[in-house]
Amino acid sequence: MTVTGPKGFRAAGVAAGIKASGALDLALVVNDGPDQAAAGVFTRNVVKAAPVLWSQEVLRHKRLRAVVLNSGGANAATGPGGFQDTHATAEKVAELLEVGAIDVAVCSTGLIGERLPMPAVLAGVDAAVKGLDTTAESALAAASAVMTTDTKPKQTLQSGGGWSVGGFAKGAGMLAPNLATMLSVLTTDAAVDPDALDAALRAATRVTFDRLDVDGGTSTNDTVLVLASGASGITPGLDEFTDVLTAACMDLVQQLRADSEGVTKEVDVVVRGAASEQDAINVGRTVAEDNLVKTALFGSDPNWGRIAMAVGRAQAEIDPGTLSITINGVTLFAGGTTAADRSAADLSGRAVEIVIDLGIGSSEATIFTTDLSHAYVEENSAYSS
Amino acid sequence: MTVTGPKGFRAAGVAAGIKASGALDLALVVNDGPDQAAAGVFTRNVVKAAPVLWSQEVLRHKRLRAVVLNSGGANAATGPGGFQDTHATAEKVAELLEVGAIDVAVCSTGLIGERLPMPAVLAGVDAAVKGLDTTAESALAAASAVMTTDTKPKQTLQSGGGWSVGGFAKGAGMLAPNLATMLSVLTTDAAVDPDALDAALRAATRVTFDRLDVDGGTSTNDTVLVLASGASGITPGLDEFTDVLTAACMDLVQQLRADSEGVTKEVDVVVRGAASEQDAINVGRTVAEDNLVKTALFGSDPNWGRIAMAVGRAQAEIDPGTLSITINGVTLFAGGTTAADRSAADLSGRAVEIVIDLGIGSSEATIFTTDLSHAYVEENSAYSS
Repeated sequence: MTVTGPKGFRAAGVAAGIKASGALDLALVVNDGPDQAAAGVFTRNVVKAAPVLWSQEVLRHKRLRAVVLNSGGANAATGPGGFQDTHATAEKVAELLEVGAIDVAVCSTGLIGERLPMPAVLAGVDAAVKGLDTTAESALAAASAVMTTDTKPKQTLQSGGGWSVGGFAKGAGMLAPNLATMLSVLTTDAAVDPDALDAALRAATRVTFDRLDVDGGTSTNDTVLVLASGASGITPGLDEFTDVLTAACMDLVQQLRADSEGVTKEVDVVVRGAASEQDAINVGRTVAEDNLVKTALFGSDPNWGRIAMAVGRAQAEIDPGTLSITINGVTLFAGGTTAADRSAADLSGRAVEIVIDLGIGSSEATIFTTDLSHAYVEENSAYSS
Repeated sequence: MTVTGPKGFRAAGVAAGIKASGALDLALVVNDGPDQAAAGVFTRNVVKAAPVLWSQEVLRHKRLRAVVLNSGGANAATGPGGFQDTHATAEKVAELLEVGAIDVAVCSTGLIGERLPMPAVLAGVDAAVKGLDTTAESALAAASAVMTTDTKPKQTLQSGGGWSVGGFAKGAGMLAPNLATMLSVLTTDAAVDPDALDAALRAATRVTFDRLDVDGGTSTNDTVLVLASGASGITPGLDEFTDVLTAACMDLVQQLRADSEGVTKEVDVVVRGAASEQDAINVGRTVAEDNLVKTALFGSDPNWGRIAMAVGRAQAEIDPGTLSITINGVTLFAGGTTAADRSAADLSGRAVEIVIDLGIGSSEATIFTTDLSHAYVEENSAYSS
């Protein structure tokens, strides 16, 4: 059990016929309370999908009874008609659950610029409400119904003391800064008031989802929602709750990276010694997004020269004389020149750690990324998504 | 004739043995005057190669007698020893030409982080000085000696009235904002004073080399130099000279793009209706560097949704409601929604024009880019460069 691991939640995943393949494509998560506190973070892309605009609006009142999600179409750049479709979906869920549409968030993922097949969506909502259950199978069906180019569902369950945080996520490409093109629903049976929930979610995503950067894309649909039922009757301290929520997010982020499009290397870009955390993030992202660095990683080539090039073009305080670059434990560049032959670093494995010490201050950040492989190009050139 | 097209210039290209392949790898361009005005623009990467540090320094006195260039090694991130190598190379050229080292600029290109084989370099300088000539063959040899992953030399010759601008360039990967990883030497027999030469060069590169963005990389070695001999005895107006110099730069930029690593599409990203030119540039670069856009182009897929996604994450004033996206003459997105079926845009050819109208102001800019192909990944993962 995952999204239904915490007490007070039911889920369902059905094949509504939105995807031509007949795969699962509509998920529903319902919070049976007693509380219905909720918080969310959304894409910073200016071009926001209709479901993002809707869900941002309904979250103003800081509570949700349900989240309905579909794959097979992003409902982005679809104009007023697309927004109407989102509204109709929320209305349908609300009607069947006997609540208001304002209590229902909507998430969509898939191709941008196409309208959803609404008869299929609404029939799918019907089927999903009927299929709602607390079982592990229903949680898995919900996690599977949001998949696009994902090859496997991503779920997590983290325990607190007598309460827990569960959830699922999807995302395989367009993974980037400021919410990695990705939908995630998190649940908890801790009793957390909406403002604390919001603070915890922002703290957790800031060091997890916000630091996953596979290809620099920032989707039109990124959404992370957390729903608190209070069903455990326990109110943990904010720090304690934030820690467990962060662990759940980090678990999902590692699963997202491991399953991202064409990945052959899972790469941690650790930036230390920065003048500020923002500098560390900027350097980490610039390196993580650099195609010359990424293709060298695909070739298992510890090409620190390309890393130095990327560091040097980042928006950050940089001094080439204090910079050092260490790959899988071997320092290859330090003091302005070569520190060891590149052959000393072994990149044959799947896990790679690049440590960039700017030697200026004491701030640090880690960005989670991948290599750039033939399979990434294949997947993203041969199929529209 | 190209770099030796303008009167007053000699060139040579020799195989010095820096490249293991035995290909041409050392070039020399000499200005025989009567003037020796010079100007240069350099990479904005903080990690600057030794030859960049050297050439920036010698250009302070606004004159150059010669430029010596090598491929087979970037001499970047090589510490004080690498700087010493650059200095020794300039000294050797100066000794043979009976001038000061301060009159000799140095450019290097190739792998970052390796010292140059100095005996080979110095012997190559000897051979190059002996081979200096005004012929088309010697100009071609110089243009060929700077090639790395380039498959062909890039040369240009543009006529003014009784004077001309010639030159060559190299560059195939790491092509990006703020001088596209690239070396270029331009020559003119117009009589232009150093300050006017500098102003003209900055104006020309701002709309040409600075707007070529193949992969977002910004090299440690980018250098564009212009040398004026005054041998025609004609002093054109600054605007007139700038126009011809810009035409020469644009010709080289188009050749660089056409020969960039793995290119199958030559793409103009035209951004109009921006609140400022910087906004237009930011949007154009974000789209040009987006791997999801680039792989879609490789797949000949007019996936405007990915373009809208990239526009929405650019640092610029954007309104999704006024944005329109036109691909090869067909407007696919306007007024917040689909304007035509994507199949209406034909991307089967090599040339692609993407027009993004932000619908906000009246500023515009064009970024020159390419697709992201299997061959790019192959070339950059299988070989260190």
